[in-house]
Amino acid sequence: MALTIGIDVGGTKVAAGVVDENGKIIEHLRRPTPAQEPDKVAEVIAEVVRELSSRHTVDAVGLGAAGFVDETRSVLRFAPNLAWREEPLREKVGALIDLPVVVENDANAMAWGEYRFGAGRGESHVVCVTVGTGIGGGLVLDGRLYRGRWGMGAEWGHTQMVPGGRPCGCGNQGCWERYASGSALVADVREAIAADPARGARLLEMAGGSLENAEGEVVAAAAHEGDPVALEAFALLARWLGQGLADLAATLDPGCFIIGGGVSRSADLFLDAAREEYARRVVGRGHRPLAVIKAAELGPAAGLVGAADLARTR
Amino acid sequence: MALTIGIDVGGTKVAAGVVDENGKIIEHLRRPTPAQEPDKVAEVIAEVVRELSSRHTVDAVGLGAAGFVDETRSVLRFAPNLAWREEPLREKVGALIDLPVVVENDANAMAWGEYRFGAGRGESHVVCVTVGTGIGGGLVLDGRLYRGRWGMGAEWGHTQMVPGGRPCGCGNQGCWERYASGSALVADVREAIAADPARGARLLEMAGGSLENAEGEVVAAAAHEGDPVALEAFALLARWLGQGLADLAATLDPGCFIIGGGVSRSADLFLDAAREEYARRVVGRGHRPLAVIKAAELGPAAGLVGAADLARTR
Repeated sequence: MALTIGIDVGGTKVAAGVVDENGKIIEHLRRPTPAQEPDKVAEVIAEVVRELSSRHTVDAVGLGAAGFVDETRSVLRFAPNLAWREEPLREKVGALIDLPVVVENDANAMAWGEYRFGAGRGESHVVCVTVGTGIGGGLVLDGRLYRGRWGMGAEWGHTQMVPGGRPCGCGNQGCWERYASGSALVADVREAIAADPARGARLLEMAGGSLENAEGEVVAAAAHEGDPVALEAFALLARWLGQGLADLAATLDPGCFIIGGGVSRSADLFLDAAREEYARRVVGRGHRPLAVIKAAELGPAAGLVGAADLARTR
Repeated sequence: MALTIGIDVGGTKVAAGVVDENGKIIEHLRRPTPAQEPDKVAEVIAEVVRELSSRHTVDAVGLGAAGFVDETRSVLRFAPNLAWREEPLREKVGALIDLPVVVENDANAMAWGEYRFGAGRGESHVVCVTVGTGIGGGLVLDGRLYRGRWGMGAEWGHTQMVPGGRPCGCGNQGCWERYASGSALVADVREAIAADPARGARLLEMAGGSLENAEGEVVAAAAHEGDPVALEAFALLARWLGQGLADLAATLDPGCFIIGGGVSRSADLFLDAAREEYARRVVGRGHRPLAVIKAAELGPAAGLVGAADLARTR
C-alpha cells in the first residue's frame, strides 16, 4: 500500500506521520516549532521527513501549515503565530528533500482529513468548523477542497454577527468567533460574574482565583460539574453556533457540518442545542432537508492525515 | 454557429430567447406567466420553444426558474411566486417538446450569464448578488456553477446581520435583505420621515403622497434629485452591502462580486461607498488582494442568456 507523510506545522509544534491509503497513521513524530525562524522550520520539516522515510517507503509529503497559503499552494503569505511572511515553503522544503511536496492551509487539511476518513465520509458538501480559541475551518464542495480565489476562504470566524459587538483581534467588532469559541465562553462567564460575583465563586476557584488567563477548558470543566454560570455560557455558545451554521447554510447549502477544534471535545455540552438552534433558524426550513451536524472524529491528527492524503492525490 | 433557447420563468412573465455561442440574443419573446397553474406554465414554455424553433435550428433548451430547483436539476421543490410544489418541470416540458431540457434556478442562471458573457468574464470565482426587493444571487466557484448539496445555496439574503433586527418574510429577524435592498431603502426613508416628517415632504410627494406601497425606485429617483433623506438611505444601503460582501468574502474569498438586480440600476448612488466599506471590513485586509466589485452588465436578459449557455454545455 502506498504511504505518504503528512505534517501539521503549527505555532508550537510540528506533528508528522506516515499515513496509509486508509488514513491510518503508521508512525508518528513530534518536534517543537522554531516559530520565529522560517529557515529552521523548513529544516525541522526536512529532518522529520528524512527520519520517517529512512524507515518507510513514502511517495510524497503533504504540509498543513497554520497560515494563509497562496493560490499556487506554495507560499505562506502570512501566519499569525509563525514568522512566515511571503515564505516559499514548498520550494524551501523541496530543496532539502527528494520527494514531491504539497502545501495546504492546516484547517483545509483538517477538513480534508475529516471528509476522507472521519465524520464527513460519504458526504459531498462538507463545512468543517473548528471551534477553539477562535473559529476557523475548511470546505469540501462537490467533493473538492475549496480554497477561494487567493487561498483565503473559510475564514468565517470573522463574519460579523453583532454590529458594534465585542472587539476582535482582526480589527472589527462582533465577529462570530467572539460569541461561539473557547474565548467566548470565558468572556461570557466573566460578564456573568461581573454582574453577580457570588454566582462565580466555584468557577473562580477552578480557574485558580482569576479568569485573567483562563481558557475554555475551565468553563467546560465547571459545566461538567453542573456549575450554572458555565452551563449558561455553553447555552449561549450553542445559540450563536447554531445561528452561524444557519448563516453558512444560506450561502453554501452543505449536507454536513463537522464541528472540530478544542471546544468540540465538550460537544456533549452544546451540540444538541446548536442543532436545535440551527433547525429553528435555517432559511427555507420545512422546504429543505436539514444538514447533519456532527462532531469531528479524527481529533488533532485530522490535519496530518488530510495533508498526507492531499499529497497522495496531488 | 450552434444556437440554444434560454427561458427565464418568473412570477409574472416568461422571457425566452434564441442565443448564440457568444451570448448574443438572436430573437426574443415574452409571454405572461400563468403562475397559479403549473401545467399551463409548462405549456407556455413549450409554445415559445415551438415558435422559436420554427424559425431557428436550436440544439437544446435551458430554463431559469424562479424557485428552489432540486439537486437533480429537474424538480421545482418550491417557488415563492408560482404554484410550483415538487413540480417535475424538466420532465413535463420534455414531454411536450423534442429537445433536451435543462432546468436551473433563475439567479444561478443569471450568475452564469454574467460569468460567461458579462461583468464576470475572465474571472474564476464570482459571487453574483442581486439587490432587488430582496437579496439573492448565484455563485461560480473555480469556474463551475455552485448549487449546494440540495440546490439551495446562494440564499445569503437571509443571513442574519442584526440580531433581533427588522422582521423578515422568511420568519427570522435582521436578515441582510432587510438592510441592503429596495425594500430596505423604503424602510429607511420611512423611519427617517417618522422621526422628522418635514424632511420627507419631497419624497412623499414623489411617492404620490404615501410610502405604503412604495418601491426602491422612488427612493432612487429622489436621491438622483439630491433629496437628503433618500441619499442617507443609499448611504446606509452601501454600508450594509459592503459589510455583507465582506462577510461573504470571509467564507468564499472570491475574485469578483457582481451586483445585479433592480437596485443596481442606481449603482452610481451606492457602489463606490459599498466598495469603501468592503475594503474597511474584509478580514485580512492588508494581507490579501481586494476582490473587484462591479455592477452587472447584462441587465434583465442575464438569466435567459445564462440558461441558454447552460443548455449548450449540459
